[in-house]
Amino acid sequence: MKKSLAEIAHYLGGRVSGDGETLIGGLATLDDAGEGELTFLANPRYAGKVATTRASAVLLAEGGDPHGKNAIFHANPYLAFAKLLTLFSAVPAAPLGVMPGALLAEGVKIGADVTVHPGVSIASGVVLGDRVTLHPGVVLYPGVTLGDDVTLHANVSVRERCRIGNRVTVHNGTVIGCDGFGYAPDGTGWYKIPQIGIVVIEDDVEIGANSVIDRAALEVTRIGRGTKIDNMVQIGHNCLIGEDCMIVSQAGVAGSAQLGNHVILGGQVGIAGHIKLGDNVMVGGKSGVTGNVAANQVVSGIPAIPHREWLKASGVTARLPEFKKTLSALEKRVAELENELARTAI
Amino acid sequence: MKKSLAEIAHYLGGRVSGDGETLIGGLATLDDAGEGELTFLANPRYAGKVATTRASAVLLAEGGDPHGKNAIFHANPYLAFAKLLTLFSAVPAAPLGVMPGALLAEGVKIGADVTVHPGVSIASGVVLGDRVTLHPGVVLYPGVTLGDDVTLHANVSVRERCRIGNRVTVHNGTVIGCDGFGYAPDGTGWYKIPQIGIVVIEDDVEIGANSVIDRAALEVTRIGRGTKIDNMVQIGHNCLIGEDCMIVSQAGVAGSAQLGNHVILGGQVGIAGHIKLGDNVMVGGKSGVTGNVAANQVVSGIPAIPHREWLKASGVTARLPEFKKTLSALEKRVAELENELARTAI
Amino acid sequence: MKKSLAEIAHYLGGRVSGDGETLIGGLATLDDAGEGELTFLANPRYAGKVATTRASAVLLAEGGDPHGKNAIFHANPYLAFAKLLTLFSAVPAAPLGVMPGALLAEGVKIGADVTVHPGVSIASGVVLGDRVTLHPGVVLYPGVTLGDDVTLHANVSVRERCRIGNRVTVHNGTVIGCDGFGYAPDGTGWYKIPQIGIVVIEDDVEIGANSVIDRAALEVTRIGRGTKIDNMVQIGHNCLIGEDCMIVSQAGVAGSAQLGNHVILGGQVGIAGHIKLGDNVMVGGKSGVTGNVAANQVVSGIPAIPHREWLKASGVTARLPEFKKTLSALEKRVAELENELARTAI
Repeated sequence: MKKSLAEIAHYLGGRVSGDGETLIGGLATLDDAGEGELTFLANPRYAGKVATTRASAVLLAEGGDPHGKNAIFHANPYLAFAKLLTLFSAVPAAPLGVMPGALLAEGVKIGADVTVHPGVSIASGVVLGDRVTLHPGVVLYPGVTLGDDVTLHANVSVRERCRIGNRVTVHNGTVIGCDGFGYAPDGTGWYKIPQIGIVVIEDDVEIGANSVIDRAALEVTRIGRGTKIDNMVQIGHNCLIGEDCMIVSQAGVAGSAQLGNHVILGGQVGIAGHIKLGDNVMVGGKSGVTGNVAANQVVSGIPAIPHREWLKASGVTARLPEFKKTLSALEKRVAELENELARTAI
Repeated sequence: MKKSLAEIAHYLGGRVSGDGETLIGGLATLDDAGEGELTFLANPRYAGKVATTRASAVLLAEGGDPHGKNAIFHANPYLAFAKLLTLFSAVPAAPLGVMPGALLAEGVKIGADVTVHPGVSIASGVVLGDRVTLHPGVVLYPGVTLGDDVTLHANVSVRERCRIGNRVTVHNGTVIGCDGFGYAPDGTGWYKIPQIGIVVIEDDVEIGANSVIDRAALEVTRIGRGTKIDNMVQIGHNCLIGEDCMIVSQAGVAGSAQLGNHVILGGQVGIAGHIKLGDNVMVGGKSGVTGNVAANQVVSGIPAIPHREWLKASGVTARLPEFKKTLSALEKRVAELENELARTAI
Repeated sequence: MKKSLAEIAHYLGGRVSGDGETLIGGLATLDDAGEGELTFLANPRYAGKVATTRASAVLLAEGGDPHGKNAIFHANPYLAFAKLLTLFSAVPAAPLGVMPGALLAEGVKIGADVTVHPGVSIASGVVLGDRVTLHPGVVLYPGVTLGDDVTLHANVSVRERCRIGNRVTVHNGTVIGCDGFGYAPDGTGWYKIPQIGIVVIEDDVEIGANSVIDRAALEVTRIGRGTKIDNMVQIGHNCLIGEDCMIVSQAGVAGSAQLGNHVILGGQVGIAGHIKLGDNVMVGGKSGVTGNVAANQVVSGIPAIPHREWLKASGVTARLPEFKKTLSALEKRVAELENELARTAI
């Protein structure tokens, strides 16, 4: 596919500088782009590379210096480039239907234009929407419901009766709806508390690879509309995750925690059970949150405190041994002063 | 299934207050329960909800206030409710045998009343006990042994010659018996140390989803009877995990570590290699344990220290920058005092 | 297989002490070895066990005390024992070819002497080298290339167009090439940035179970020759990992980070995005690295600082509450001194 720079600028709602007839056949980074390719400058740190890139055109922010190159100016070049990537990389694959080698129970309901690969297992009572794609090794337990335009990558499991909305993508190996971790001490060991709730994944959610979302004990573990979850993330039973959240790799949210909307959890963060994070809360990577956090706060540390305080405190931590010495020295000096004054007083 | 309140009280060993003839057809939370349902109060924080629940009856601790509702009093309402959940949710599924589409090598030994779903792969020399359930995508490598009443969920792998006891449940995607992480530096790179030991999972163990338990280098990695392991937990090679332990999500135990009985590891905990934790040790979430811990201790922090000390220290951490200022100010004041005294002395 | 001690010593380049005709049929630990077995002493801490082992011979470092046992002395007994384990445990399995029940698209190119188990799915355009072994549940997406002597364990996924070199082993459930976690805020929610790059795994890499290596947004996520990656490790998109690195379980490397050669990351380490670690850097377990680290440094802590400083600082942390008291007491004493001097001055 080739498009002129002018067509692209029109598509993006940007403004051409230079030759609008330039044909663009692909996209690449500043370093790698060549003849016929468009590149972009999102991070001002790399502005110098615009001068040296071999790209035929560059997409950059209003006010940027195109160094004489053909250019498209745009209010948000990063987002614009992402949209172009979608345009250039979209491969409209024809649906393949239920392929031989797929293992379906009787009575499964299947929408239009699905692709169910060989090696998929679908149990009874499952309902698939339109344009669903299931890769090999996907296992849908009884009673699972998938909306329209859902893609489940290879080896994803969705457990009994869980419900997935529209336009949801789940990457390889992720498990949705396995039992929450609930046991009651019975005097000697642990008595398993049956986990009979479900997981509900709302529309427009994307979940990375090898993550796990536990089913609720009684009710619902919910992932809100538009939320994005990275790889190897743990969501405990009964959690209620808001809309448009972003949860980075290896973070864990313990049971019954509640996240508001637009909450961002950094990598390897831990959220304790039963606590609440308000809307727009941000938690720095590797932090451990042990208490409720009001809306719009940024917190970090173990246990987490306001991010600014944490930055200051952690800058000081390395100097603790020095403080210890200073403190001991001061104690001596004060004792000497006290002695001296006592003598003087006499 | 419907049971009278009196029948339920008898089953649980509890005491009815109100109308014992009330019929109960299901269980739900204080908030969600309705007509014909039983709810429970385990956490005194929610005692007020007993007055407003629409449940037909409530299960609560001796001495609790039923607010005029039909009630069952019980010494341990949480455990009692769990047992009721088991009673009400148990669905006695008829065994389905080895289903078409299951891939079995020759000579596999299979007990009575098993269910082996399509898409299961079983290699030569495998032995399955009675009432084993294997979901699609389960892969058993050569020589694996499973006891009675074992359930392996979809996409679980059990590697060569590992042994799983009775009444063991493993959730989706978990890997048992892959190679331990052992390499010897050979002057330039890393020489792989063959991992020829196995994993032994004792009776009544439950393991969550996407966890990994490495096989021993030479001998056995052992998970003791009754131990419960959550999702995405790493158990390194040669570890010996005691009985009735509880290991929460995303915790990792490095190679050759030993845990006593009834040890509890919080979420995202790390245990260093070759160390020993005594019986009943508890490790707070996100802690890193780098040395042996005697029985009955509670530890937290990185590196872990007694939990009480850690609580105190972490409460102070945020005030470090303030201390730094106080310390600098004090140094100045002491210097001035010293100067003044020196002058006075002259 | 039985070999004489003399043969073994010759194979290893070691020196026999005692009876070189002793026949060795197996290997075991100091504690477990018996008649006809060879054991080894690598850790001087266990030197006393050489006296009591029931092994027929012991492999130990030059200068070690064989306590009268038959022995092989070797400059590097740990490496030597690993090589012996390889020798004794290697089972030359005959290749089984593409077995019935494997699901192959048309036009897949397959090298000599492969073993493709039932339940493997291979998409169009895939190329397999010689002596490739694919266990059940392996899924190769379109255009994947595997070199010679590659083993992929059960339920591994390799996504579109990723390339794996020679002599690479990947353990169960690991995902190579799923989408990187990239979204651009579009004013309301998150706009997905298509991830159209690939992953390249170079020769002699080994990757543990349930790890995830994200494909690049545009270019390549690269794992360098000889690098060893443990279980549940996250490698973000666009990362460039050097040669002969060692990345321990549950560590995470965020997007676009670069590791030099021979870098070692401890368990549960987190590396922030876009930073660079020089050659031979070591990062202590559970640390969080937030800035570049020059070659040959050892760092620890959150955020990571030089390991020695961290050791000192973390030794002091537990005493913070005590410091706080000392500091308050000192403040009082200094105030009193100041008052007294003021009085004296008058």
